Amino acid sequence: MTNASEQDEALYLDDLHVGMTFTSTTHQLDEQQVIAFAKEFDPQPFHLDPEAANKSLLGGLSASGWHTAALTMKLITSIRPLYATGILGLGGEIAWPKPTRPTDLLRVVAKIVEITPSRSRPDRGIVTMECQTLNQRDEVVQLLKPKLVMFRRGKR
Amino acid sequence: MTNASEQDEALYLDDLHVGMTFTSTTHQLDEQQVIAFAKEFDPQPFHLDPEAANKSLLGGLSASGWHTAALTMKLITSIRPLYATGILGLGGEIAWPKPTRPTDLLRVVAKIVEITPSRSRPDRGIVTMECQTLNQRDEVVQLLKPKLVMFRRGKR
Repeated sequence: MTNASEQDEALYLDDLHVGMTFTSTTHQLDEQQVIAFAKEFDPQPFHLDPEAANKSLLGGLSASGWHTAALTMKLITSIRPLYATGILGLGGEIAWPKPTRPTDLLRVVAKIVEITPSRSRPDRGIVTMECQTLNQRDEVVQLLKPKLVMFRRGKR
Repeated sequence: MTNASEQDEALYLDDLHVGMTFTSTTHQLDEQQVIAFAKEFDPQPFHLDPEAANKSLLGGLSASGWHTAALTMKLITSIRPLYATGILGLGGEIAWPKPTRPTDLLRVVAKIVEITPSRSRPDRGIVTMECQTLNQRDEVVQLLKPKLVMFRRGKR
């Protein structure tokens, strides 16, 4: 397992290989952030109100899945070698196997699982990653498999 | 095509059928919202800086895909018959076929594509939806296929 998170240089399509793994910085969540995001984007009782959340299926206040997703993007942009050339996502699969809690300290471990050079556009390719968003107990709160457009060296 | 968006009553698993379609309210985006979200969650030049964005692959300022996703959730919660029982997503597939622009007026059209009653828990089922996020020109800026947990009447 290669951990390239401490490299400073931009990585291009040419430099990537399947199995390459990157670790992000961390983000400390809190109740205020969870509630503020929920008010704006996902105003449901289990994301807004600790008391109502205790009685819900989630058994306590939890962040909107889209809040976890947005924080995951923030953490991915902390991976400088990827960020340097721009992280342009086409989409992917997302799952939330466990709730994200207001006390969670989140980090992302991102692994390259597939590299497909573009046949029509030789300057770029599609890189599929597997991004695990983990809490401080190493539990996966989100699993994202995004498809990213990455460019060859000297093309962007 | 059934448009159930104007119904006020909560819908339960018992009431749903494949093909049922719901339309959300609308959300008017603007440059300030796009930049504020990007600063917090996706600080890349094409989401932050109109000039840098003009020179980027996206050809102008565009919202983070995760901003489009968060606004889509907000719009889905405006569909009262679904919201009434809680919208609990397990995950799904997401794609951004076109950039979301700061001038976009967004709305969501959500269609039920699959209903799978739980075998182990008779009080609930998994409902797969196809949620198109459309701009004012009826262009799809996001396609989301979420899997939602829905409950039978009287169980939640």
